[in-house]
Parts: sequence; C-alpha cells; structure tokens
Amino acid sequence: MKDSILSEISSPRELKKLNYSQLNTLCGEIRETIIDTVSKNGGHLASSLGAVELTVALHRSFNSPDDAIIFDVGHQSYAHKLLTGRFDRFHTLRTKDGLSGFMRPDESEYDAFVTGHSSNSISAAYGIFKANAALGKKSVSVAVIGDGAMTGGMAYEALNNAGAKKGKFIVVLNDNKMSISKNVGAVSRSFMRMRNDKRYHRLKFAVGNTLLKMGAFGHGIYNFINRIKDAARSFVYKNNIFSALGFNYLGPVDGHNIAAMESIFDIAKSYDRPTVVHVVTQKGRGYSFAESSPNNYHGVSPFDVTEGVNSLKKISFSSVAGETLCRLAQDNPRICAVTAAMTCGTGLDSFSEKYRDRFFDVGIAEEHAVTFSAGLAKGGMIPFFAVYSSFLQRGYDQVIHDAAIANLPVKLLVDRAGIVGEDGESHQGLFDVSFLSSVPNMNIYSPYCYEELEYQIEKTANNSELAAIRYPRGTEGIKADIDFSGDYTLVSVGSQSVVITYGRTFSAVLEAQKKSNKFDIIKLNRIFPISAELIKTIEKYNKVDFFEEGIRAGGIGEHIASRLIEDKCGCEYKIHAIDGVFVSQQTTDEALSLYGLDTKAVIAAME
Amino acid sequence: MKDSILSEISSPRELKKLNYSQLNTLCGEIRETIIDTVSKNGGHLASSLGAVELTVALHRSFNSPDDAIIFDVGHQSYAHKLLTGRFDRFHTLRTKDGLSGFMRPDESEYDAFVTGHSSNSISAAYGIFKANAALGKKSVSVAVIGDGAMTGGMAYEALNNAGAKKGKFIVVLNDNKMSISKNVGAVSRSFMRMRNDKRYHRLKFAVGNTLLKMGAFGHGIYNFINRIKDAARSFVYKNNIFSALGFNYLGPVDGHNIAAMESIFDIAKSYDRPTVVHVVTQKGRGYSFAESSPNNYHGVSPFDVTEGVNSLKKISFSSVAGETLCRLAQDNPRICAVTAAMTCGTGLDSFSEKYRDRFFDVGIAEEHAVTFSAGLAKGGMIPFFAVYSSFLQRGYDQVIHDAAIANLPVKLLVDRAGIVGEDGESHQGLFDVSFLSSVPNMNIYSPYCYEELEYQIEKTANNSELAAIRYPRGTEGIKADIDFSGDYTLVSVGSQSVVITYGRTFSAVLEAQKKSNKFDIIKLNRIFPISAELIKTIEKYNKVDFFEEGIRAGGIGEHIASRLIEDKCGCEYKIHAIDGVFVSQQTTDEALSLYGLDTKAVIAAME
Repeated sequence: MKDSILSEISSPRELKKLNYSQLNTLCGEIRETIIDTVSKNGGHLASSLGAVELTVALHRSFNSPDDAIIFDVGHQSYAHKLLTGRFDRFHTLRTKDGLSGFMRPDESEYDAFVTGHSSNSISAAYGIFKANAALGKKSVSVAVIGDGAMTGGMAYEALNNAGAKKGKFIVVLNDNKMSISKNVGAVSRSFMRMRNDKRYHRLKFAVGNTLLKMGAFGHGIYNFINRIKDAARSFVYKNNIFSALGFNYLGPVDGHNIAAMESIFDIAKSYDRPTVVHVVTQKGRGYSFAESSPNNYHGVSPFDVTEGVNSLKKISFSSVAGETLCRLAQDNPRICAVTAAMTCGTGLDSFSEKYRDRFFDVGIAEEHAVTFSAGLAKGGMIPFFAVYSSFLQRGYDQVIHDAAIANLPVKLLVDRAGIVGEDGESHQGLFDVSFLSSVPNMNIYSPYCYEELEYQIEKTANNSELAAIRYPRGTEGIKADIDFSGDYTLVSVGSQSVVITYGRTFSAVLEAQKKSNKFDIIKLNRIFPISAELIKTIEKYNKVDFFEEGIRAGGIGEHIASRLIEDKCGCEYKIHAIDGVFVSQQTTDEALSLYGLDTKAVIAAME
Repeated sequence: MKDSILSEISSPRELKKLNYSQLNTLCGEIRETIIDTVSKNGGHLASSLGAVELTVALHRSFNSPDDAIIFDVGHQSYAHKLLTGRFDRFHTLRTKDGLSGFMRPDESEYDAFVTGHSSNSISAAYGIFKANAALGKKSVSVAVIGDGAMTGGMAYEALNNAGAKKGKFIVVLNDNKMSISKNVGAVSRSFMRMRNDKRYHRLKFAVGNTLLKMGAFGHGIYNFINRIKDAARSFVYKNNIFSALGFNYLGPVDGHNIAAMESIFDIAKSYDRPTVVHVVTQKGRGYSFAESSPNNYHGVSPFDVTEGVNSLKKISFSSVAGETLCRLAQDNPRICAVTAAMTCGTGLDSFSEKYRDRFFDVGIAEEHAVTFSAGLAKGGMIPFFAVYSSFLQRGYDQVIHDAAIANLPVKLLVDRAGIVGEDGESHQGLFDVSFLSSVPNMNIYSPYCYEELEYQIEKTANNSELAAIRYPRGTEGIKADIDFSGDYTLVSVGSQSVVITYGRTFSAVLEAQKKSNKFDIIKLNRIFPISAELIKTIEKYNKVDFFEEGIRAGGIGEHIASRLIEDKCGCEYKIHAIDGVFVSQQTTDEALSLYGLDTKAVIAAME
C-alpha cells in the first residue's frame, strides 16, 4: 500500500479533495488493506468490508472530529481507522499496544466514544449532541447503527428520547440484512419490506447515477427529486419504527454509492429535526468468500486470503456446551435454549437446527433474554440462556428481579468468562463472578474442562437451582483425574501451603503443582455460595493463595477472605486477581502472564 | 365492606356470574376499599384506581391463573388482589408479613410473575406463552403495560421478539396518559394521537353503549362493527410502534367501560397472532383529589381521606440533592441533571423548572440514561443522573462500558440506597455498593446527613471523577460535628474496639457510642476505593465490627476484610450485613432491627 492514495490520507479532510474515480480506487485500497491485516491478526471482516463506501461518504459529508460520528459496536470501523490517521499503525490491529478493533477515544480524537457492546451509539451521540447544544457549539452528531443493533432496547430508548425534538441529530441505519447471526424479529422484517420497495431501485439506478455524474447541477436535481420522493415515500413507509418514534425517515439508499449517500446526508443535514438515513450495504463486499458466506467472516481468526477461512469447527467450551444441551434435550422435552443473537458464538448451531421449537434467538436483547428465560422457567421449561459474560452485564437487574427473587430455575451458560484476548476492555469477562455472587439464590459453577462442563450442565438441568455455569473462550488445558461432584476438590501432595482456584486457572495451577510439588490445590467446583466445610478445609493450611481470573472486588477470593478472618484464621492469605483495572487487548496468554495468573506466576508465588 | 359484593368474591370465576349493574357496584366497592387501605398503609393509589374496570374486564375475559395475566410494575394490581382471594388480607397491604404492593407468585397463584421494576411484563408473559406452547398447554398470556413502562427498552425488545409470530399472545396497553412523572418521548406523543382520533369516540358513545345494553345479540354486532372499524382504523393508525413491530393493533377502547373491553378482548382472543389492545384509563379515577392531581397520588404515605394528601414537601435526602444541584447550576452552566422518569421522586422538581435546557427526563430508560449521561460528559457537561439504587441495576453494563472504560466524569446520584421499607424485595437498594465497587475507575460516596450530601455533590461537581453518591430514602438521623473531607473520619473515645460504617448507619452507630462509650468509630466518607491509610488505621484495633446496610457479598466489609487478612492483621473482625437473602416488605426500622443494623444491635455487638 505504499504510494497508494490511502497512504497519503492523514485526515478525513483530505477525502474532500478526491474525485469519484479516485475515491473508487481508494475504497479498493481500503478493502485490500483490511483483508490483508485481518487475515494476519484476525478480526471483524465482513462488517468492515461492507461499510467502506459508507465511511468515505460520512467523512466527506461531515466534519469529524467536530461532528461526532459513532459507529455502533465498532467492528465496522476499520475503514474509519484507516482514514483518520491510523493507516501506518493499522498492522498492529488487535495486538498488544496496537490499534483497538473497536472505537477507543484514547486512541484517536476521531473515535468519539467507546464502542464494543451493541446499541449504545444513539444514546452516546444524543448525549454529545445535547452537550453541544447546551454549550452553544454548532455541530452535527451522527450514530451509525446496524440492523442487528436495532434489536437492542437501548437503541429504542434513545430513539424515543430523541424523537420529535429539534436539531441536527442523525442516525444512519447501516442495513446489511443480517446481524451477527441471522437477524431476527419484527424490526428486521420491516427493514426488509422497506429495502425491497421498487421505487428505491428505480431512483437509484435509472435516475440517480445519471444525475450524479452531472456534477453539482445534477446533485442539485438529485436532491430535489429525493425530497419529493421522500414525501411520497414517507407516506408509503409511514409504518416504520423510526417515523413512529418521531424521526424523519430518508432512504433507503445504496450504501456502495458514495455520491448518492453524500446527497442524502446533505438532505439530512438540511433538516432541523432528528433524521434517520437508511443505507443498504452488502456484508463482506469485495471479498468473494465473505460475500457468499458473510456469517463465517463476521469475526475471524487469522486465515489464508486465497483459501478463505477454515470453517471446520474446532472443539471448544462453547461447542461442548451446545452438544451437551442437544444430548439432554433428546430425552427431556422441557430443555430449551435461548441466545441473544449469538447462535454460532455460543455453540448452539446444532441445537437451533435439531430443536427449532425449543430454540429462541431473541435478538441482541440480553435484558429481554433473561426475563423471557425466567418466563419459560415459570411456565415449566428448563431454559439455558447462553451468553457472553460481558454481555450478561446488560441483564444484571433481570437476573436479580425476574429470576432470583422468585428463585426460578433459569440456567445461565456464561461463555467467554475471564480474559478474552484481542477484543480488549469492552469484551473481557471479568465481572460476572462479582455481580452474580451478589445475587441471593444464585449458584455459580466454573468448570475447568469439557467433561466438567458437561457434568455441571447435566447436574443443573436436573435440579431446580437458579444457576450460572461459566467457562472461558477457547479450549481446555491440562487435566487431572479428579472428581468434581462436590462443592470443591482437594488435590493434595501433603503440603502446608495451598492454592485455591477455579475454572481454567486450575489447569495452570495443576501444571505448576506438577513442576514444583510444593503445594496442595483446592479446586472450587460450585464456586458460590461458599460452604462452611470449605472454610474448615482451608483453615488447615498455613499459607493460602487464591488465583482468580476475574475482578478482585467482589470475587470469590474476597468472599473467602472475609469468612476466614471472621473465623480467626491465622493463615497467610493472598489474592491474585485483576485489581481495579480494565484489561486491554493482547493475547489471553499475554494477559494471564501480565496479571500473574499463569503457571509461572503460581510457581513463583508458592516458592 | 361486610355484606358487600366484593366480600363474596373468592375467585375471579365468580365475576362471570354478575351483571353489569352488579359489576358497577363492585367497582365502587373496590375503589372504596383501595382508598381506605392506602390512606392507612400508604401505597400506589392513582394507578390502582385507574385500573379497576380494566381488571374486572380482564378477569371476566380470561381464565386466570390458567391464562397468565401480568400487570407490569404491579402498582396497579390492587383490584387484582382484591378479586383473587385476598380481600380478607387486603388491610395488611405493604406491612410486615402482609400482602405485597406488587405481584408476588409466592403470595398467590394468580400473581403470575414478580413485578416491581418497569417494562418486564411482555418478556415474562411471552416466556410463559412459549413454555405453554412447547408443553402443549392451550392458554392465553396477557401482559398489561402502562404507557410509561412502554418507554423502557425491555418492552421493545420483547415486542420485537414476539411480533409477527403466531399464537394468542396479548399485550394490553393501559394508557393513562402519564407515567409516574409527566410522560415523555415520542412514543407517548404517538399514543396521544391515537387516543384523540374521533372515530374512537364516535364508536364508543353513539354505537357502543346502545349495542352493549342489548345483551348477547348486541355484543355480536358490536364485535362485528369493531372488526370492520379495526380494519379501517389500522389503516389510519398504521404508523404506530405496535404495528411497526408486527403486532395486530386494536383500540383505543374506553378503559372504564367493562362491556366494551370484554368485546375487544374477545376479538383479540379470536386472532392467532400477537395483538395489542389499547385501553384508555383515567389515573386516580373515582377519588376527586387523585383525579385532579394524579401525580400527587402516585405513591403516597398514609393520609386523611377527606382532606387528601399533604402535598407540603418534606426535607429529605432527595430534596437536598435537588436543591444542591440547583445552587451549583446557577454558577456553573455545565452542570445538568438526568432522570429516568423520576423527577419528583429524586427531588429534581425545582431543577426541572429552573434549568429546562439542562434537565433531561429520558423516560423509564436507565440503560439509555447512563450512556446519554456519558455522552453529555464526553461533550463537556457535568451530568448528574439521579436514580433509585434498585433501578440503577438496569444500567450496570452502561456504567462499566460507556462511563468507566473511558473514565468519563459521570456523577450518579444513587437515591433510595439501602433498605427502602414497604415496597419490599424488588425495591431494596442493597446491591449498589457491591456492583459499583466492582467497576474500575468508580469512586463511591455514602453521606450520612444532608450537609455531607451537599458537600460530596459539590466536591464531585468540581472534579473529573466518575462518581456515585448514594443516600437513603427519607430523612437524616442524629448528627455529630465531624469533618468529612477525607476518605474516612475517626470518632475516637480511646477504645481498643472500633465500629466501621458509612451512610445513615453512622447515625445509629453514633447513638450507640453515646450510650455505651465503649468503642471508636471509623466513618467512611469515600467508601471505595479503599486507601492504604485506612487499613493502617483499622489495624490499630483489637476488635473490628463492620456495619453495612447492604448485601454482604461484594460489600465494603468484604473488601476491607481481604486487605486486612493479606496484611496479616490479627484483629477480631465481624461483618454485620444482609447475607444472601432478599429483604421483604416491612418498615425500614423493622428491617434494620431484624438484620442487626440498628443502635440496639451495635450496642449488643460491642458489649
């Protein structure tokens, strides 16, 4: 990419000097760079490829950073990063100390807000918009949100708050016809209806392109026609969620036609009221493998560009969870599975095919997912809600209020618990033990291997507990031949020192024990609540070290510490955990080493 | 109410035997009973009075408990309680061991789901509906949701999930033209448009009532006309949120006309797809004081029925917070206030009038409120989001992801922190210290008196901290002349024993100290994070008792315990907190006594 147009762009202002032919070349270069880097570093490919022209058009129509542009989730922001002075560092994407795969204000002033979790962009952009208004700053705020993210309740709360007010507040619906998994729900159906209207195609192809080739004059007419069509269209499209919420609705427009988008953004800017611009893009655009199966190219590990990604499924905690549910569902018609738009990520693909009537993809809607699961449980089913740890944060109130107060037998399969690696701060699963153990009636399990995961799923499927079973991203580590039917398992070498731990950290501790042979291990199986018997067992030791891959405050290490000190235990006690910081992007191994949670750290602590 | 129709109703089945004249008498008796009981016990008056006929119609049209009927929030469920076998116990409403002011499945099989927090009814009802479908049980699920609750994102997530599917799933929109505060947002505007359509009134008065007096034949014609009108109306009303989300829309119908509602519910039941019935009710109906100022009669303390409630505002932590913000906003144009539909409850009435451009009521939308506040902060404002502790649980992810990762200077005013009394389990503010202290970058303050509240608000307004200032419901207790500028304050009588505490518990501890003179007190001001200096100070004592009005797991008592044991402190240490249970309804004093958090308990512990 040396001597390319892209390499010369140091700020979005420079985009405005290019003609459409140069812009087309630029878009090709952006795609090539994204494919090249993601094939080496892994990352979100299909969404980013789909949003290249959209990003160029946005940066030509608006003045970032004065105008805040917030890309919801941020996994489609790679082109944005390349065009805002980060081309030189783009090869560091998702590596330690490199560029984030999401928007991070501390990385660039062009990243207006932290993104990573879905559906927050409209709220954030509207906050910035109202701050600007209060401080007399004239600028536009733009939220760019996908059709998938529109299934999240936060987006609706924000639209309801912003709708039918005054001012230049713009929401760009980046409609790529699918979210992470197949898009679900009524809203996506209504987008489809809007997309397929013939008027849109007629305008786009027959009139639009010709006019747009005519320069400023043509643009003027195009805008004028668009305005008239807008009036007519708004009648036809009246029945859409945006107009119902008091937003002006423009579109749909071809999200790969830069000139057309610029025109429609100009129109949007001319209104003094909240406006939605509906942009239709193709996920995976420009990379044939990704175009034909965008789902496989949503989030990818490193791959060979000419061969495409290896779609052979690896065994992982997620796949084992999914297979276990399938097996149990065969004999028990009350077992059902719920996902918040993460069918593949949580390993529920097979379940979704085999048990269609008992499989519920509710959209990116964790609040609803928890309460819906509680409703299923109340109605006599045994619901397993499989969800990433960091996304379950969205359902904390529902776990307390809708599941725990009535002590309903909801089962949470908490995937990606612990360090997740390259996705960084927003995706780390470090809080679940802390927030779940604060909830009365909650039982928490943290299996360290596939066999234990299977065991705990089967166990909770057969009891009436409200339970969370949490397990890490990826694959199991080294194993021991131990029993995990009780609350805890003692792996003794007859030492006066003991390491307490749970989850995958047990594998690291086990390895350390094999190497040093200097300490016993207490492996927690049901990690919370804590039994009196466990405390008695711990009190036999002189030196106790707790290794916990999670936030220290409110972790099991602290819960046990408080029981020990109340019990006047005189042991030496130390917690090794993540203490009051966010963990930035790096490989999981790098993070575990940095925070003293790997085999080496265990050996050093127990010397 | 002896020898009344109401006293004879032991189950909703008996309602079906009454004629409309008897039903009218019954509704009067229900209102009388509600007014009488709430005037003695306090409670939610206006919403319950508005939903009397609606409740009667629902129980005549549906077969509860086979058909699940879930009243969102549940503060309008008093008539439901009176008609489902709880008339005899209704005088115990909101008292210890008495009837709950919300729906509680452990109280009655007719209470299908826990309610209390807004907007969960559609999710819960849809879960029960899908469970019934999976288990082959033929029954209808009904969610009854207010227009206020429709501003919560969860409701939208559930509608999106349920929309455009099959089956008899019914959402009743109980539109009383206002939520707790004045209703806000685009959705409420669209409800208003729908309400005001003339066709509705014409049908209701000119045709409806006459036909309905004609018995079964008239009902048949009424239903037929309704169906035709429905088709016409759905064209007119196409632009509503429900039809956009794939729901069948019926209404609006007069929510005080039992026959009309029964007819429309019959129509709704006849469809095999999700249907919304829009019912218009009058908040406070049947009690003139409440009709004319329903806001003052939303949640009330005991009052004189003939005089009405005393609307004279008492000084409280909430009012002091509001007045302090007003004072600071006068000199600082960057200070602004955010509420999630709790303007009055959080003491922001004056602020909302004086600083209209810097006051934001975003609806019952805590997720959006937190992120919107973060956006305001990012844009240079100093936003104070005033929210009840138990409702902030809804914004936990947003506190982590949108405020804390970027360390934005959002200020949370956490009202109703600690025991709240008669509202019971769903409203206790017992989790905030635990979940907020798990968040990196968070600073937590817990003032014990008005002066300290003022001080901490002013302090955080002038610094760039992400902060939460938490304070209890109600008024301050006894005070001491102490300085609270540091992280903690030592109130010494030269003892070897110390009580550590924070918030209003300090008043109770202070009183105990005055009585017994046997222990020192460490009062925490910034309760988290914990300073090394605090730990050193604690370590000088032999006996340390931590009194904490909150959940034990993840509380400050545990955080400090873990630091002490790591530091090899040999002191005797005990945490007095709420340990792994939900606290049911009772007066705040009763609960503090029960859980050993009052003056008496402190004296006993420090003997």
